[in-house]
Amino acid sequence: MKVEILTIGDELLRGEIIDTNKARIAAKLLSCDIEVQHQVSVQDDPDTMLEAFRSAASRSDLILISGGLGPTSDDLTAEVIAKAFCRRLVVHQPSLDAIRAFFERKTSGTRPMAESNTKQAYFPEGAEVLPNAIGTAPGFRLEVGSVHLICMPGVPRELDLMMDTHVLPWIEKRWPGRSVVCERRLRTFGVGESSIEDQLGGLARGGGPLGDVRLGYRTAFPDNFLRLVAHASTVQEAQARLDEASAKIRHLLGPLVYAEGEVEMEQLLCELLRAEGKTVAVGESCTGGLVSELITSIPGSSEVFLGGVVAYSNRAKVEFLGVSEALLNTHGAVSEQVARVMAEGVRERFMADFGLASTGVAGPGGGTTEKPVGLVYLAWAEKSRATRVEKLELPFPRHLHRRLCAQILFDGLRRRLLGFEALGVSEPSVEKSVRSTKQENGLG
Amino acid sequence: MKVEILTIGDELLRGEIIDTNKARIAAKLLSCDIEVQHQVSVQDDPDTMLEAFRSAASRSDLILISGGLGPTSDDLTAEVIAKAFCRRLVVHQPSLDAIRAFFERKTSGTRPMAESNTKQAYFPEGAEVLPNAIGTAPGFRLEVGSVHLICMPGVPRELDLMMDTHVLPWIEKRWPGRSVVCERRLRTFGVGESSIEDQLGGLARGGGPLGDVRLGYRTAFPDNFLRLVAHASTVQEAQARLDEASAKIRHLLGPLVYAEGEVEMEQLLCELLRAEGKTVAVGESCTGGLVSELITSIPGSSEVFLGGVVAYSNRAKVEFLGVSEALLNTHGAVSEQVARVMAEGVRERFMADFGLASTGVAGPGGGTTEKPVGLVYLAWAEKSRATRVEKLELPFPRHLHRRLCAQILFDGLRRRLLGFEALGVSEPSVEKSVRSTKQENGLG
Repeated sequence: MKVEILTIGDELLRGEIIDTNKARIAAKLLSCDIEVQHQVSVQDDPDTMLEAFRSAASRSDLILISGGLGPTSDDLTAEVIAKAFCRRLVVHQPSLDAIRAFFERKTSGTRPMAESNTKQAYFPEGAEVLPNAIGTAPGFRLEVGSVHLICMPGVPRELDLMMDTHVLPWIEKRWPGRSVVCERRLRTFGVGESSIEDQLGGLARGGGPLGDVRLGYRTAFPDNFLRLVAHASTVQEAQARLDEASAKIRHLLGPLVYAEGEVEMEQLLCELLRAEGKTVAVGESCTGGLVSELITSIPGSSEVFLGGVVAYSNRAKVEFLGVSEALLNTHGAVSEQVARVMAEGVRERFMADFGLASTGVAGPGGGTTEKPVGLVYLAWAEKSRATRVEKLELPFPRHLHRRLCAQILFDGLRRRLLGFEALGVSEPSVEKSVRSTKQENGLG
Repeated sequence: MKVEILTIGDELLRGEIIDTNKARIAAKLLSCDIEVQHQVSVQDDPDTMLEAFRSAASRSDLILISGGLGPTSDDLTAEVIAKAFCRRLVVHQPSLDAIRAFFERKTSGTRPMAESNTKQAYFPEGAEVLPNAIGTAPGFRLEVGSVHLICMPGVPRELDLMMDTHVLPWIEKRWPGRSVVCERRLRTFGVGESSIEDQLGGLARGGGPLGDVRLGYRTAFPDNFLRLVAHASTVQEAQARLDEASAKIRHLLGPLVYAEGEVEMEQLLCELLRAEGKTVAVGESCTGGLVSELITSIPGSSEVFLGGVVAYSNRAKVEFLGVSEALLNTHGAVSEQVARVMAEGVRERFMADFGLASTGVAGPGGGTTEKPVGLVYLAWAEKSRATRVEKLELPFPRHLHRRLCAQILFDGLRRRLLGFEALGVSEPSVEKSVRSTKQENGLG
């Protein structure tokens, strides 16, 4: 079976936005063991679109199209497909009713549906309409001889939902008995790709002890992911192979692997804290609220996160975190001493079990010879233990500096909760990790 | 001139990596007034590649190809192009020498060039070789009748350099006197695309009062962008047209347009505050640090941002923001009264000119009949004016809810600083704006 993905939009052809839809469609097809041979993108231009639809139909059996289903005048997909394959455009009354109802529901009846939206209820004759539960643009499937065209919206989450609820189930019914492909992602933090490969040794090589489970790497700052892919005749079998491969890898990498799948570090941390009945509070200077923001992005985080102070000014450090003027004058805001008091102060004042703190020079300005851009002190306080402070010099631009600081704070707390030693800058491994992450991200 | 971009690689077709090369090439071409009509990606499969090269050559005048120039057996671009257009593959001695020298330099003579790398010195007969100063894969340009094929490496920084140093200069020599293309982006917040189109009236239609300046829309939650594109023979002329078109649009849209170009709302706000010598502090509940995080993402924000309190627990609202237990007991944490005291409390305690606050139910859990998920109170406090509190019910998932709350807080302060009335939920326009933004984002 020849499969093609076609995305439509001037903004893609101009390079204004990176087209991620092609990759999302392809990845979903791959989970049904379907490989895509062609990917094409064309402008919102009727002639170019027409030619693209016709040549796709001349070489491919299944064509997945995304974009051009909106209400505006440059959304032409249904119209051009109708023309390309000599169909009339006909109104689909249930879609028209659904779009109208969508508007009425959303505006509580105060705003009538715009005339332009009626356009979204017209489809090439003979098409099967694919409902869109979360937007106004329904998709559709059209058979032209032996070729199947499936048109979906360009909005990523609408596209995802339509693929999951309509397209993939239809594909499985239409072409049954395909083998199953499952993947798993192991999330690591703290070392670069090549260090991971070193630690894995022979396991990293194809045809080795992982059998036919394929191993790949992906850097997703500040993490590195290992991606395992298994083919099998059933999901159970594929999952069993992935379980086995994952266990082997986790045995070698130990605490470097912090989670599997879509679990973010901050989510894991909320789960660990909840399981232990512990709470955390955060005093942030250079991270500027990012640490709080990441934790509170997790639903239910209010059970474990008591709050934070973004102490961007010295006054705030004094007023809210109990840092003394004397300490600020003697050591400066970016110092081990101030980081320590910030973490302890925020923990005490919020009556939390753990206090985290950051103070540093995120740049690009504000650096001095003594305290250069990239210097940061991170601190972890808890009641019954000495406060730990780490000094790091991170060679990253502002936004990555902040993100990495947040992740190091989280990872330190994770390792503490799990009973592992925290990675410290004094240990060679972290130095290496930071450098290696940097090199592999091409930064610095 | 018809232009096509062709990228090659199994990993692209599988959706394992997002192909950014197409967008980089397209954006570079656009600056020379060259619009791309087609973008195609194919697997590292010789038959598919051959067909893709031939069909590209049958419809396009200039074809830019990226990928498949590496040393491994699945790098087939030169070989397949030779075959597709009936050329022999011939060795290019200077390239062979350069590749050999590259290896000797890199390994200080300790590692001989791998045999597989000699492959990278073979090109279709008649090709002009494009040197690669930073990698082992030279590119090449081949004329086939009136069609020009340009092959470049897939490594982004090598691709960029080759585009800049060889391809763009060649294009300018080959097709001199091309017009100049300039673009401008008007950033709006507060209403959806279709409302903007309504407000622009005839201005939105092609061939109308904007002349040949093209107008497009793009939703980038929580904003909507208008994109203007002007062609002219000089940059000055194009900019003058954009100035004129932008002025007409801004006249109609008024304060809806908050900035032009790459200026984010929080950046603009920092500039406005700095210009007025004013400071701000933030008391956040449901936004959880996001407001602080966005402001502090701007370098130099410490001049205008004094800090914030993430008061996720009631205790924090009492301890840090002066909210009384009585108020919390009477009205609950999510209430107009508490939002008001939070904004006033954070302003006073940080001694800031403005205090912003949020308290709401971001969801997905935590809603009640009386205080449903999506309910939020936003507050703006300043010394010499009454505190303003807005109640909104936002129909978005957690992360978008938070992001929209932050933007509404920013936009309210922007309008205050510029002397516009703030958009309030009591005014029909905002109801409409929020709903409209939502619908056009297909969110529900």
